[in-house]
Amino acid sequence: MPRVSEQYLASRRAEILSAAARLFSANGFHATSMADVINESGLSAGAVYRYFRGKDELIAAVAEEGLTAADEAFTELLSEDAVPSPQQALAALIRAINDRMTPHPLIGVDVTRIGVQVWAEALRSPELAGRANEVYRRLRGHFAEVARRRQAAGYLPADAVPEQVGAAMLSLAQGFILQRLLVDDTDADGYLAGVTALLSPVSPPLTSAPAPNSRP
Amino acid sequence: MPRVSEQYLASRRAEILSAAARLFSANGFHATSMADVINESGLSAGAVYRYFRGKDELIAAVAEEGLTAADEAFTELLSEDAVPSPQQALAALIRAINDRMTPHPLIGVDVTRIGVQVWAEALRSPELAGRANEVYRRLRGHFAEVARRRQAAGYLPADAVPEQVGAAMLSLAQGFILQRLLVDDTDADGYLAGVTALLSPVSPPLTSAPAPNSRP
Repeated sequence: MPRVSEQYLASRRAEILSAAARLFSANGFHATSMADVINESGLSAGAVYRYFRGKDELIAAVAEEGLTAADEAFTELLSEDAVPSPQQALAALIRAINDRMTPHPLIGVDVTRIGVQVWAEALRSPELAGRANEVYRRLRGHFAEVARRRQAAGYLPADAVPEQVGAAMLSLAQGFILQRLLVDDTDADGYLAGVTALLSPVSPPLTSAPAPNSRP
Repeated sequence: MPRVSEQYLASRRAEILSAAARLFSANGFHATSMADVINESGLSAGAVYRYFRGKDELIAAVAEEGLTAADEAFTELLSEDAVPSPQQALAALIRAINDRMTPHPLIGVDVTRIGVQVWAEALRSPELAGRANEVYRRLRGHFAEVARRRQAAGYLPADAVPEQVGAAMLSLAQGFILQRLLVDDTDADGYLAGVTALLSPVSPPLTSAPAPNSRP
């Protein structure tokens, strides 16, 4: 009965991921050993190693869970020929992030805490650095596609480079993750209001010359 | 001769900071002990402990060095009644950050690498979390002042909340630090071009109705 077996395998894998994520979130990567994960999961060493060969694979798998939300948000956002504004793209992603700020249904902790630890760890682990590069290029690519569609519709300057605009949009998501965890008074609604105001400047007032179509 | 003595003290302190920063950057906070710092500095334990009571004080002092550049950039930017655009504010800060990406003249390493480690470590150390909160509120406040002046000059919506707009601008700086370290093809000039394009959308084209002052 292969279907039952697959479900069983997936559920075992999720248990191990959940145990690892709890330990990573509470103690960080360095203070967490495979022995700790095995102990926390309540499974045998053999069972755990059947799914993950080591800590780096566990870290990558936990990080991958956190990204699923982002990918899903973009899939919906870019369906058919939608031309979302940068604000709409960010709102979709930030709401997806914010939903994950509450304990993730599968792995039971706030995965963005683990994301920030991945950033630091990637500076010392070439393997994790390669993975982080791949992941953020993918997310930047999603935002670049938003920029490309806006540009095609005439809402962005014709000489703008979509990948560069995508990098700026990615920052607005990364900064939210960081400030939400580290800076008081950061909430999704207020943050999005700030982004919207920043991206929607009003026309500068005319102080020295009358407007072209004004009637004196 | 108090002046010589002060110079001597400052130079000793800088030597210790430099040793600590090299170790933090290469090995991270966890794998670095006070004994390592003492050894790397070439000074006696008593001499090192006279300046820094422990690793947390060293981390805070190294982070402080990195912030000096940011504060200086804002001091210049906000001198007198200047009304810099968000792009100008970011350009000044990002160029200040970028200059520090090359080894810091005083402490000899790229301090932004240590900044990213502070983010992760602040999630587990309440003391460092308090410090990070203070630092980022200060930086957000600088950006909020930029937003306030733009708003007073009529360039931002009247109902925008400057602190919220400041949070979005701070993200654009934090995201640059992160992407510069972790994502290929991130450079200051291209990044700023992306920010500028994102913040300067062209007016949407009129496709269904003629422009008010067009002549058919």
